[in-house]
Amino acid sequence: MTEPIRILGVPGSLRKDSYNRALLRAAATLLPPDDASLEIFDLDGIPVFNQDLDRNPPERVRELKQRIRTSDAILFGVTEHNYGISSALKNAIDWASRPYGDNSWNEKPAAMVSASTGMLGGARAQYQLRQTMVFLNMRPLSLPEVFVSYAPKKFDEKGNFVDPDGRKFLGDLLNALVAWARRFKTASP
Amino acid sequence: MTEPIRILGVPGSLRKDSYNRALLRAAATLLPPDDASLEIFDLDGIPVFNQDLDRNPPERVRELKQRIRTSDAILFGVTEHNYGISSALKNAIDWASRPYGDNSWNEKPAAMVSASTGMLGGARAQYQLRQTMVFLNMRPLSLPEVFVSYAPKKFDEKGNFVDPDGRKFLGDLLNALVAWARRFKTASP
Amino acid sequence: MTEPIRILGVPGSLRKDSYNRALLRAAATLLPPDDASLEIFDLDGIPVFNQDLDRNPPERVRELKQRIRTSDAILFGVTEHNYGISSALKNAIDWASRPYGDNSWNEKPAAMVSASTGMLGGARAQYQLRQTMVFLNMRPLSLPEVFVSYAPKKFDEKGNFVDPDGRKFLGDLLNALVAWARRFKTASP
Amino acid sequence: MTEPIRILGVPGSLRKDSYNRALLRAAATLLPPDDASLEIFDLDGIPVFNQDLDRNPPERVRELKQRIRTSDAILFGVTEHNYGISSALKNAIDWASRPYGDNSWNEKPAAMVSASTGMLGGARAQYQLRQTMVFLNMRPLSLPEVFVSYAPKKFDEKGNFVDPDGRKFLGDLLNALVAWARRFKTASP
Repeated sequence: MTEPIRILGVPGSLRKDSYNRALLRAAATLLPPDDASLEIFDLDGIPVFNQDLDRNPPERVRELKQRIRTSDAILFGVTEHNYGISSALKNAIDWASRPYGDNSWNEKPAAMVSASTGMLGGARAQYQLRQTMVFLNMRPLSLPEVFVSYAPKKFDEKGNFVDPDGRKFLGDLLNALVAWARRFKTASP
Repeated sequence: MTEPIRILGVPGSLRKDSYNRALLRAAATLLPPDDASLEIFDLDGIPVFNQDLDRNPPERVRELKQRIRTSDAILFGVTEHNYGISSALKNAIDWASRPYGDNSWNEKPAAMVSASTGMLGGARAQYQLRQTMVFLNMRPLSLPEVFVSYAPKKFDEKGNFVDPDGRKFLGDLLNALVAWARRFKTASP
Repeated sequence: MTEPIRILGVPGSLRKDSYNRALLRAAATLLPPDDASLEIFDLDGIPVFNQDLDRNPPERVRELKQRIRTSDAILFGVTEHNYGISSALKNAIDWASRPYGDNSWNEKPAAMVSASTGMLGGARAQYQLRQTMVFLNMRPLSLPEVFVSYAPKKFDEKGNFVDPDGRKFLGDLLNALVAWARRFKTASP
Repeated sequence: MTEPIRILGVPGSLRKDSYNRALLRAAATLLPPDDASLEIFDLDGIPVFNQDLDRNPPERVRELKQRIRTSDAILFGVTEHNYGISSALKNAIDWASRPYGDNSWNEKPAAMVSASTGMLGGARAQYQLRQTMVFLNMRPLSLPEVFVSYAPKKFDEKGNFVDPDGRKFLGDLLNALVAWARRFKTASP
């Protein structure tokens, strides 16, 4: 019997009805409970990063860093703004990578999902985040990828992700992420 | 006789001794005073963007939007964090692009400079910002580009940009930006 | 009375039934004949670029360079392979940019369209091409953008682009490209 | 005792005195002989990819695909042209990924090195190749990265990579690649 994989879900938006947080909530329900679990860490209450302050981060950042360290894998809910990563998400990533020598993301297996109102489903932001993950020295999954386009059609009025194809793709990604994370968990005891 | 080109300099870091702000200060002194002027808008005091609040932006954001609108061109001092745009800069860009239908960056001529402590001088962040400028419908200069690598060697202890080659490249970029902005200023009176 | 804008269409695929060439054919028919014209330059018969040979390019490359120089604007039909620019298109771009000092793309106004069988419609390749256009010192249009997703549903069996929404977006892009190119044509007589 | 890791080196240039091929030759000599070996596959003689022909690839492409399959890891020598991947390299990658369902790169551990005459050492092309590796479903190393800038100063007249710092960085990357490849070799016997 193996220990479950603990996934930390990080949604990229502060918006109350964020599609990307809703997508992470859906992910939590699609995981086989014996195999893996997902908890969401909301990014409210984190001020804009200032490198002069990175040795004394706000309490909420300390908490984020602790939660990253005790997780086996990260699932980003990548909000896209202006064809790039939302500032809320980039901000949290930058805080948790600092100060120099204390990068909490180091060697973490990771995957991304994204939803947007437009046709590309957040893809542009995902590829920018992949570039950032190089320097963070993370271990991102390659395929499969999940981009939820035209989000208002794919969620019901309560924010449930109800698109059948999308749910299947999301399930496939979660299975791949759990297998990927397990490979590193067992390989480095 | 022609009116001077008014350039708004936007440095991407909140750090007190930011190299990118120092680079914009150097730019201000390299412009021919009769032809162009550059003023710096610091990004302190802007909270993390939340789309739920974009119709009631903070006063500092209103001010930024007003300053963008009354400028002929933008010069970004692109701080790079984790191979991407600093959250401080992306945050200001996102605020000033909103609410929907009131994107202050629209059709603005623009250029970028960047400095970093490493070998690539912020190049990775510049290319990500170019992608964002597509959706902002800005008019970025293509060449020349300015990347200041190994920044601690290129600035003196007072933050003056003292690298002779770098100053020449910066001057070339400024001349090109002024000519580029003038093309649009005269073309659309 | 103004001279028509001459657009060179460059399709990125050697495939006989290429969707991207079909998209450029549709573009040719959507232009107002008095205002602009579009001719397609096919990329067959160009060997893989070798820098040792760039001072003696193949005849077909000389022809391409001549056609670029006598055009007012470029419209790329961006074929995407493996999330990047097709090798056929990148190859032609590289040949026509050489030898050093004889870059035919220099200062050309340009836009891109792309079609793919998948959901993203070639977007990833378009953003990579934008990065290349920086060094080519081209003048790419920012908005609007055209991405034709699920291409087999948007073209009839004869390769006609029959998607009503897509045709409208394509028309909008062409109008914007013609206005953009005219700005540079009149500004630099 | 463990089997050595077999690395396939793929240089991105057809140029006789290619710095990127020279860098791969240096890599071959820096590997501990009992632990790993590197052989170079030159890309001469491969025509421009045409999807109509991908079920009957040229003999040289069949050979490449076979060599990829029997390797434990790939080391790309990433030639940059016009801020993107050289067409010679992209072309070989596209051929070896086809036909649909027979992608030879699938799940291969990989790393990249690059050299260029300019300041950025091929970095822009490396990040584009990372995007392509997502769809190829490869397993790229994150850190360390190797970018050899101002290449003419770093190689002697015989093409030996003589830069002490660069050789150290290259050695570090090779050690990391061998460890990374071994992780997958032992995990999936």
